[in-house]
Amino acid sequence: MSKTSSIEQKLQSRAQEVERLLDQLLSADLRSDEIARPERLRAAMRHGVLNGGKRLRPFLVMESASLFGAESGPALRVAAALECVHCYSLVHDDLPAMDDDDMRRGQPTVHKAFDEATGILAGDSLLTYAFDILAASETDLPASIKVDVILALARASGLGGMAGGQMLDLEAEKKSPDEEGIRTLQAMKTGALIRFAAEAGAILAGALKEDRDRLRRFGEKIGLAFQLADDLLDLTADPETMGKATGKDAARGKGTLVSLHGEAWARDALQRLVAESEDLLAPFGEKAETLLQAARFVAERKN
Amino acid sequence: MSKTSSIEQKLQSRAQEVERLLDQLLSADLRSDEIARPERLRAAMRHGVLNGGKRLRPFLVMESASLFGAESGPALRVAAALECVHCYSLVHDDLPAMDDDDMRRGQPTVHKAFDEATGILAGDSLLTYAFDILAASETDLPASIKVDVILALARASGLGGMAGGQMLDLEAEKKSPDEEGIRTLQAMKTGALIRFAAEAGAILAGALKEDRDRLRRFGEKIGLAFQLADDLLDLTADPETMGKATGKDAARGKGTLVSLHGEAWARDALQRLVAESEDLLAPFGEKAETLLQAARFVAERKN
Repeated sequence: MSKTSSIEQKLQSRAQEVERLLDQLLSADLRSDEIARPERLRAAMRHGVLNGGKRLRPFLVMESASLFGAESGPALRVAAALECVHCYSLVHDDLPAMDDDDMRRGQPTVHKAFDEATGILAGDSLLTYAFDILAASETDLPASIKVDVILALARASGLGGMAGGQMLDLEAEKKSPDEEGIRTLQAMKTGALIRFAAEAGAILAGALKEDRDRLRRFGEKIGLAFQLADDLLDLTADPETMGKATGKDAARGKGTLVSLHGEAWARDALQRLVAESEDLLAPFGEKAETLLQAARFVAERKN
Repeated sequence: MSKTSSIEQKLQSRAQEVERLLDQLLSADLRSDEIARPERLRAAMRHGVLNGGKRLRPFLVMESASLFGAESGPALRVAAALECVHCYSLVHDDLPAMDDDDMRRGQPTVHKAFDEATGILAGDSLLTYAFDILAASETDLPASIKVDVILALARASGLGGMAGGQMLDLEAEKKSPDEEGIRTLQAMKTGALIRFAAEAGAILAGALKEDRDRLRRFGEKIGLAFQLADDLLDLTADPETMGKATGKDAARGKGTLVSLHGEAWARDALQRLVAESEDLLAPFGEKAETLLQAARFVAERKN
């Protein structure tokens, strides 16, 4: 992929890599210690994960790994594991007891295409599989790095990260959190996984703590930008462009930073986040250009 | 705990140890990288895991670790992680879309005590936390052993293990599997975690492959015995003794080995499994006595 390729081309190319690997990981072939791969569950997992997403999180893992000169093979497996976690969260968030969504990326959600019980199990199994992928011998990393990655992903995903954020989001419908509450909710619900993605390359390469911190803070900026752009789109985009229902947050009276401060503020904030990202990655020079393209892409995204 | 203590006393003592640790792990204290621990989610996780279970799986981990002279501190953390996985599976299995159970161990199930969305998230978070506990620096094990344990637990829990078994179990209501189908289902749904529990001590101690295999096969025997005893109890026990609804499998027309071959066959089979367990652990002599007591306890259990 040449340096002058558009960010869309780069994203697409990485997305294809990660999808090829996910397709292979979710084939019918039994791995050691597996007793059987029940067909219906495997099909539901595939439906939940092989659905043409943009694969932003895997992209950040791969580009952050590349920034530090980490090998791309193991980075791709970490990217695939992370995407399993992200997709499990979508499958569960779409359930009737949660956001009750019928469509995602223009396709029926897993519990619609299968049934609710299968949706729950497919999410559970994708989450479990993420840790399987990271620990498996095919992931060619020193054991100590694997443990660091597993811990970081677990922390980003669980009670103190994404799942906790989803809990706060459900409560927000009744509790109307203030600005600080909204920021915590968003840092957990969407921010934690994106921060992990940006940081992952530094972990994989065993980078210096200072560099790891830079990537981590860069990840926080992208996470915020992602959420602001999402909240803007939820207000303004039509469902067809998004491939899912829109305007739902507003309809439920859920506060966002956009509803609190307005669209003009949000567009300014997005520009500030891009500028701060550029400052953070300045020490890496040219090498960080693709990551910065990604930050701009996130801040400007239209769907 | 003296050698002559009853197995009930030994189980209770180990259960207290693991509960103390789980209580501490699920305190309000933030771990590094956690953004917040939302109170409602933490309470639901505690409800799902601190519920006075017998802690058979943790017991097997601890005793198998002790058999190989592995340190008890790390073994206790592995036991707690495994119990998080077991309890997550109960929380999700109890959901309306799955077995739709209101009571478990005489208490309201998590989705009854809280709500369905919180039940889903509490299960998700317990599953995620299991891998957090294993990877955390407090689990004082070499990284390579951590990775082995994480992989073994993930394989036992996911698509090719427990979650896959739950999928087969849901399908069994319509498909009426034959004996081989029932055995596969049970080896996955209940067998895989119990096998992992018995094998875990050997993994922790870095035991010889031959010894690890013995414990693994012993775990398979206990898993089968557990399921047979469970199926017998489902036919014969009253709900009050069990603290949950009984007779549900029969009411749904779900086949079990007991419904296929009858009670007398099942009681014989349980005796055979105990004898085979004794043969498998014979090379360990006296040291394996507590594990064999556990096997007998499982085969004879009344609730």
